[in-house]
Amino acid sequence: MEDVAVTESTQDVCCAGACGDLLPSAEADRVARICKALADPTRVRLVQYLAFSESGTVCACHLPDALGISQPTLSFHMRKLHDAGLVTRDKRGRWVHYSVRADTLRLARDFLTLPDQPGTHCC
Amino acid sequence: MEDVAVTESTQDVCCAGACGDLLPSAEADRVARICKALADPTRVRLVQYLAFSESGTVCACHLPDALGISQPTLSFHMRKLHDAGLVTRDKRGRWVHYSVRADTLRLARDFLTLPDQPGTHCC
Repeated sequence: MEDVAVTESTQDVCCAGACGDLLPSAEADRVARICKALADPTRVRLVQYLAFSESGTVCACHLPDALGISQPTLSFHMRKLHDAGLVTRDKRGRWVHYSVRADTLRLARDFLTLPDQPGTHCC
Repeated sequence: MEDVAVTESTQDVCCAGACGDLLPSAEADRVARICKALADPTRVRLVQYLAFSESGTVCACHLPDALGISQPTLSFHMRKLHDAGLVTRDKRGRWVHYSVRADTLRLARDFLTLPDQPGTHCC
């Protein structure tokens, strides 16, 4: 519970000033929405499986066996991924083909491409 | 509801074979856990704020004002980020200093660095 230390008077700060710019709210919302869709191991595996297929698109007939899930479970997870903009659906004949959306993956990846050197900023 | 089309007999597939290797379960769990911690706009902003501070570490005294949140809210979100391995905590004197964990960010980023050319795999 060391966080309790920071509940004291705001006048009793260790040093002055804040550190940088805040991510715009709309962008934070978008990244959080993508991450929420990927907050499940089955969906993580589905996205990876689609992305590493020969050309980024897989016919749904393969997915239940490949992932070890039922068709209703596949539909549930694909809906979450689609709603978050992570996959597109394309019906070809009687089958649905799923593709990853590179633009959405890139947005999340760009967010995670942050400076990573350790150190102390303010004191 | 076009997904209904894929609930038919597994003999009635559009083409043969599966597409690629599946992400190992432990790795999928780890990515999902990181994404779950980032499935909230405030935590997305906290991670970005820490990472873009001068050297990746920020004293907690700055964070509530910078993010427009209360100290209890900060503690709640920092605990989630810490539990997912996204930040470290270091008590220096009376203040807690938070840093982003580059290794964890890198793991999620590597997952999102996927092939991104569109196309059709199997049919």
